[in-house]
Order: sequence, then structure tokens, then C-alpha cells
Amino acid sequence: MPLEELKEKIHVYEDFPIEGISFKDINSVLIDPDAFTEVIDTYFKFAKALDINKICAPESRGYFFASPLAYLLKVALVPVRKPGKLPGIVETESYSLEYGENIVQIQEHAVEPGDRVLIIDDLLATGGTMKATCNLVERLGGEVAGALFLIELEELKGRELLKEYTIKSLVRYDR
Amino acid sequence: MPLEELKEKIHVYEDFPIEGISFKDINSVLIDPDAFTEVIDTYFKFAKALDINKICAPESRGYFFASPLAYLLKVALVPVRKPGKLPGIVETESYSLEYGENIVQIQEHAVEPGDRVLIIDDLLATGGTMKATCNLVERLGGEVAGALFLIELEELKGRELLKEYTIKSLVRYDR
Repeated sequence: MPLEELKEKIHVYEDFPIEGISFKDINSVLIDPDAFTEVIDTYFKFAKALDINKICAPESRGYFFASPLAYLLKVALVPVRKPGKLPGIVETESYSLEYGENIVQIQEHAVEPGDRVLIIDDLLATGGTMKATCNLVERLGGEVAGALFLIELEELKGRELLKEYTIKSLVRYDR
Repeated sequence: MPLEELKEKIHVYEDFPIEGISFKDINSVLIDPDAFTEVIDTYFKFAKALDINKICAPESRGYFFASPLAYLLKVALVPVRKPGKLPGIVETESYSLEYGENIVQIQEHAVEPGDRVLIIDDLLATGGTMKATCNLVERLGGEVAGALFLIELEELKGRELLKEYTIKSLVRYDR
């Protein structure tokens, strides 16, 4: 399947989970083996060129794309999780949302100086989660080699927040 | 890596997330490409023989193993999620926990009569989540071809709750 057809595969649900939100449902990609293969194979080519040794993925939809890629590249997979899910010593980062704040954690031993890390999430919106994840990786001495998204919501200008990083998204929406 | 070495790779944290729990940390498998490859390749051989066309995975640690397998087998991947995460018409199942209850959901269109479904989760404990997932699949007309776990906590007797199904776990603990 050509990448151009991917957008047509993604079902959009209006007013989910709350009124005014136009929800892009990545489950419609996961359930379609041709579409899913196209995404993973495209990511594979992009990641190959970055010479990475680790992939980080924020909970939980990032896992769908990070995990096959880690398998194919034979690199370490490091989940970024919400508080209370990771045992051992963790590094914590909090960031503001429109209402309230979010907290993400990573195991302290999971990123080391010298690591070149690719971060994968399903959706680039405001970029808050990705920026927090980049901060965690860098605080542990890793280098963020790039960030990959399936979907980018351009109106929310996440790309500006992440302008110091190499970013790729496969499907873009203006809202 | 031989499968026998896998258990040694899994770090065990005592008293996490609460006192008395001996937490088997699957992150230690994800971060080790040899161990992760061994798990996925073993799953691949098992799943190949089941002639499935769909993989379901409960949120969220099941995703790490279900997703590469769906990619390799070129079959549909269907996430089972906590309430409020899936758009559109969903099928819901609730089940009892030691304290309180849990609810899982699946998109109604995601499983159809005739589907042969493999369900993948990281851990078999009491089996409650897996049983609820099997119920969802069957209520939508699918057939549960098998269930795969990385870890089985034998003391909790999840296998008895799931005795009507074909089950495989790679690493077993008596507590």
C-alpha cells in the first residue's frame, strides 16, 4: 500500500472522547495488515539511517509501532510509563496540560550515556509527552536521534516545541 | 538465546507495587534484544501452527509482544482497552478482582464470525483479564485459537480458569 492511501484508512470519529475533538483512530491501521506493514516498513527505513541503539515509547499507543521496530532492528525497547508502573529507581518528568499536569517515568538504568535513542509515539499534538520523554532521555545521558509519529495534528504546533529534534510524521491533519 | 536462559533475564522486584508482591519485570526482556527476539520467534512458531487471522491484546503490556507478531504474521491486531479509550460502538466485559472490578472493551467491528483469534498478554496471574477478553471475542462470533503469555504465576491458578483454551507460557514461577 502506498503511503498516500494511509490517511484514507484512518477512521475519524467526531466528538470523541469529548465534544469538539476529532479523534483519529489508529486502531483502523492496526487492524489492516497492509496498512500496518506500510507504517512499520517506512519507520524501518527512517530508523536504519539514524544509527540508533534504543527505542523509547510513551504509554501506550506508541508501543504498537515501537515494538515491531525494536524487533526488526534488534535494538533495546524502553517503555515510558505513567507513575507507579515501573519498578526500581525511576527518573520522573512532569509537564503541563491544558487542564492539569501529566507525569511520565523511565527506569533509570534503561538509558545510558552514549545511547542514541529513537522515540516513537502514535500522535503528535501539542508535543508535551514527547518533549518530556526527550528530557528524560537526555537527563540520563542519552541522545535523541529522532522522533517518529504516525499522525501529526499541525494546528497544535507540536513541531515548534520539538524544533531542536529530527521529526517525522506519516499522516498530517490541519485540525 | 535458549529459552531456558530467559527466566534469568527477568528481574524480580520484591514488594512492588505493594508489599508482598514479587514483581516480574518484563522490561528486562524488552531492553535485551536477544531475549526479546527469542520470545517473539518462539511465539511466531506457536502462532503459525494455529492458523489465526487476528491477534487481540489487553492493555498495555500485551502490546509489546502482540504487535511484532501481528507484523510478522500479517494478521490484524486488535487492542483490548480500558473503558473510554476506544471510539465507536464497543463491546464491554467486566470481571471481579480481589478488590473491586475491572472493565475491558473491544471495538464491535474488530472481531467477526469466522475469525480465529490468538490472545497475547504478558502475564497469567488469576486469568481474569484473559477470560474477559475470551468472552469478548466469543460474544462477537470469533473463536479463541489460543492464548500466549510470557510469564505464568502458577500459584494463582489462572490456567484452571482458562482450561477450555490452548494456553502457552514461556516462563513459570511458583509464586
